[in-house]
Amino acid sequence: MMRKAYQEELASIGDRLVEMANLVGSAIGRATTALLDTDLELAESVIAADAKVDDLQRDLENQAIAVLARQQPVATDLRIVVTSLRMSADLERCGDLAEHVAKLARMRYPEQAIPRDLRRTILEMGQLAQRLMAQAAEVVLTQDIDAALQVEKDDDRMDELHRMIFQHLMDDRWQHGVETAVDVTLVGRYYERFADHAVSVARRVVYLVTGERVDELITDRPA
Amino acid sequence: MMRKAYQEELASIGDRLVEMANLVGSAIGRATTALLDTDLELAESVIAADAKVDDLQRDLENQAIAVLARQQPVATDLRIVVTSLRMSADLERCGDLAEHVAKLARMRYPEQAIPRDLRRTILEMGQLAQRLMAQAAEVVLTQDIDAALQVEKDDDRMDELHRMIFQHLMDDRWQHGVETAVDVTLVGRYYERFADHAVSVARRVVYLVTGERVDELITDRPA
Repeated sequence: MMRKAYQEELASIGDRLVEMANLVGSAIGRATTALLDTDLELAESVIAADAKVDDLQRDLENQAIAVLARQQPVATDLRIVVTSLRMSADLERCGDLAEHVAKLARMRYPEQAIPRDLRRTILEMGQLAQRLMAQAAEVVLTQDIDAALQVEKDDDRMDELHRMIFQHLMDDRWQHGVETAVDVTLVGRYYERFADHAVSVARRVVYLVTGERVDELITDRPA
Repeated sequence: MMRKAYQEELASIGDRLVEMANLVGSAIGRATTALLDTDLELAESVIAADAKVDDLQRDLENQAIAVLARQQPVATDLRIVVTSLRMSADLERCGDLAEHVAKLARMRYPEQAIPRDLRRTILEMGQLAQRLMAQAAEVVLTQDIDAALQVEKDDDRMDELHRMIFQHLMDDRWQHGVETAVDVTLVGRYYERFADHAVSVARRVVYLVTGERVDELITDRPA
């Protein structure tokens, strides 16, 4: 009976993590749309919705502490609870980053923050960020190691896009002025950090399941 | 006996947190010097030293998990351990941010990354970041609530400096080109984030000790 209640509590923590991942994945997608379409209403809704993510994180933290106190898990179960706390911190931060993108859209409204020649790159970053988070959520749900390694691999594209933005900024033909350069620098960093946190969530699952860090796994495997 | 071993383990976790805070406080100070003096050797040493911070964080996490498993703390003691995990994540991130500053110094070497008219502001940001971290370490050690609220207050100056940088960047008279604007944007953000994490460490102590969030405390108090 104790055991069953405990498994239910663990499952409920997992559900909350997946719910957080879904929320922040949706938030980064909508923030990107708000930014590229100069949609003030959408930007405001993303900003307002972040409170829900913060609430979920607080709930999850309290729930994890309650599980630790009541069930006093050891070994793997204990690591699951502790790791969940770390993952919820990653996801909470992703919510903040989506909010930052939306706030930039709001700050520049009704102007376009992103110049025409970078819109495609920013769109791809936004979509990729959303996709990486959906993959991370799936990894939390399924504990599928190959899917987790795929998140890692797909994040390489984010780094590539981030480098492309910098090349563009450093190009002598940059004509959009310093204000836009600052905006693009920050927004590029928001997407890159968002993706890093999605990768981090997937990595933590790998470590939980295999006890090995991702670098070790990748080195061990045939290419 | 059990109780004594437990108190010792908690104290040792606290010592590790303070050690981490000291390391990252020193790192941000040295990274700032490396950046402003274009000192490549110093930059390299900051970059190399971050591995030590990462190791400490891993040790602290393992130690916290061991305490949870062996001692199965409840109530306040449990919150102390869980909060320590969160604080160690804040501090680990601060180490990364100091490393980012050092990497910028290295990337631009032997050029100056920071233009003359912003050096004073960046120096103040670096010194303030180091000071805020020293204060946060002291708060961890002493659990002094007033000192924690002071960290919060002193961080206002960081926000002010960060705004000054943006005003400078947006000024039509900016003559340092886009590359420098991008560097200054990122480095400004690194310091601001570093300070946020120092504030976060202090806030977590306040919450542990009083059970109240800082906002509530500040609202309750006479100005």
